[in-house]
Amino acid sequence: MRIVAADTGGAVLDDTFQPLGLIATVAVLVEKPYKTASEVMVRFANPYDYDLSGRQAIKDEMELAIELAKKVKPDVIHLDSTLGGIEVRKLDEPTIDALGISDRGKEVWKDLSKELQPLARRFWEETGIEIVAIGKSSVPIRIAEIYSGIYSAIWALKEAQEKGHVLVGLPRYMEVSIEGNKVIGKSLDPREYGLFGVVEFEPPEGLRWEVYPNPLVRRFLIFEVTSKH
Amino acid sequence: MRIVAADTGGAVLDDTFQPLGLIATVAVLVEKPYKTASEVMVRFANPYDYDLSGRQAIKDEMELAIELAKKVKPDVIHLDSTLGGIEVRKLDEPTIDALGISDRGKEVWKDLSKELQPLARRFWEETGIEIVAIGKSSVPIRIAEIYSGIYSAIWALKEAQEKGHVLVGLPRYMEVSIEGNKVIGKSLDPREYGLFGVVEFEPPEGLRWEVYPNPLVRRFLIFEVTSKH
Amino acid sequence: MRIVAADTGGAVLDDTFQPLGLIATVAVLVEKPYKTASEVMVRFANPYDYDLSGRQAIKDEMELAIELAKKVKPDVIHLDSTLGGIEVRKLDEPTIDALGISDRGKEVWKDLSKELQPLARRFWEETGIEIVAIGKSSVPIRIAEIYSGIYSAIWALKEAQEKGHVLVGLPRYMEVSIEGNKVIGKSLDPREYGLFGVVEFEPPEGLRWEVYPNPLVRRFLIFEVTSKH
Ligand SMILES: [Mg+2]
Ligand SMILES: [Mg+2]
Ligand SMILES: [Mg+2]
Repeated sequence: MRIVAADTGGAVLDDTFQPLGLIATVAVLVEKPYKTASEVMVRFANPYDYDLSGRQAIKDEMELAIELAKKVKPDVIHLDSTLGGIEVRKLDEPTIDALGISDRGKEVWKDLSKELQPLARRFWEETGIEIVAIGKSSVPIRIAEIYSGIYSAIWALKEAQEKGHVLVGLPRYMEVSIEGNKVIGKSLDPREYGLFGVVEFEPPEGLRWEVYPNPLVRRFLIFEVTSKH
Repeated sequence: MRIVAADTGGAVLDDTFQPLGLIATVAVLVEKPYKTASEVMVRFANPYDYDLSGRQAIKDEMELAIELAKKVKPDVIHLDSTLGGIEVRKLDEPTIDALGISDRGKEVWKDLSKELQPLARRFWEETGIEIVAIGKSSVPIRIAEIYSGIYSAIWALKEAQEKGHVLVGLPRYMEVSIEGNKVIGKSLDPREYGLFGVVEFEPPEGLRWEVYPNPLVRRFLIFEVTSKH
Repeated sequence: MRIVAADTGGAVLDDTFQPLGLIATVAVLVEKPYKTASEVMVRFANPYDYDLSGRQAIKDEMELAIELAKKVKPDVIHLDSTLGGIEVRKLDEPTIDALGISDRGKEVWKDLSKELQPLARRFWEETGIEIVAIGKSSVPIRIAEIYSGIYSAIWALKEAQEKGHVLVGLPRYMEVSIEGNKVIGKSLDPREYGLFGVVEFEPPEGLRWEVYPNPLVRRFLIFEVTSKH
């Protein structure tokens, strides 16, 4: 099975560890044995001008996933919304009302579906590929999340050159490490059986970085970069 | 404390990873230090003719647990239903209504109890041994679940000789490996502190197998066997 | 960020593994990189005379945290109640009613706040330090919990000299080990990224101890000490 999935992750934090905005939307192609990505696309947001209460992430994810899927022709696209795997092209108002989710969730999707349902339906008509709202159950979405952490770390390394110092909150229970010219992201949960990602990137000179627990959010780590100059 | 527990697990999957039916019901005797089984009984279902929406599993588990308990005389039997540890022999309608579970759960138990409550009461009258509905909190039930994964892998190795190829979904976050003539099952969750099982079995010749994440169900692994012929 | 946090943990168990009472309240100072404590205070309860259904733990925790905070002047105090981080000094009846928690939780806090809200307000007026009800999200509280497990093990070693045998239930998914004159406590959850504690203590002679899973409570371990005499 060949699956395209997308997720948005990594957050710039202020110095009291409060999130200001998200950093990287990533789409991945995941194939057997479903541990990493065979292809990756990334789009960076401007985390300093980000509406954390809005729904921009899922729209960016759907668009980027469709862009990658047009290139690699997967069997299916996984979208990060936990609705039991329903096809997004089928999400009209009555169907949303019938979902086993909270009233708030239904409200959100009635609004989202105005844009996302036609997009999904057109894509299916063109390609036969379904976009399914599978969310938390999906391993490819978790791999996309890990890559969003890797790209957030890469963003942080560039940002620290300009700003001198930056704090990034990584996605849930994952670490990043830098080995030579590779940035490696790994899930810390052994129950996920070794999900990881690798991106080639040479860190700029004159930087040092640390990874440590976010004291305010158990099981989430912080990636901190400081310029030595 | 000497505990008998039972569980049913391992699922045959079709080639889109959808479960068709469950494979193995296992009863175990668990003693200090509560990491593995000292005795094991297994009963195989026919997973190609299995009602996944029905309640056959818990009836098979109760019967097999009673069978093992008659042999090994434990202090208690653990049943895989999370009702806070209540004794199954006490589950009449008023008691079920008073449980802190969903209406659906109460419905299910009002039906199950017709068969299971008299069975539990008779067994207690004969032996003094209680059957408690402890479910997710029980370590012996988790050990029974790990053994159901081991026996599902054994079933898969035999099945692949006949059918050429088979996909089995293992129980939650556990792996199986084959070392010589032993099939070993291990929990992947270090918080469980090293729960495992070992069953002697010589894999047939001409087979190869793989273990990898189920892409549609995070933290569950697939055991895939293919005949080389 | 310098954080004081407190928690109560470790339980004496009877020989059917039922908890009789809690053992140790610990306050910790946690600083970057937020993996262990830089300072520790402990207060032992009498676990044989402990009201497990009462609320003594959180009162003991608040008092001990304030005592440590007066000494080390942290930026904030973390209290183990999961209310989204609200300041305890702000918990009057209308504010409690507006919290997103169960009716039972609101009942409990309306009673607790009579004592804890004035205490928090006075402390803030004197020092400017907030006490926030952050609970499960806090890493310093988890570190305090790990230390409560270490001190419970130390208590158990002394207790076994007198009583000959004792069973202690450790806090969730942590282990203790003894290396020379150090008692070490470690989280078993790799997603927490290596939280630990160390307390110097020379175990008395003539004792042996074991750590193994609590068969009735998955992911919780038992620390058992027996006198060889
Ligand atoms: Mg997401
Ligand atoms: Mg079960
Ligand atoms: Mg607590």
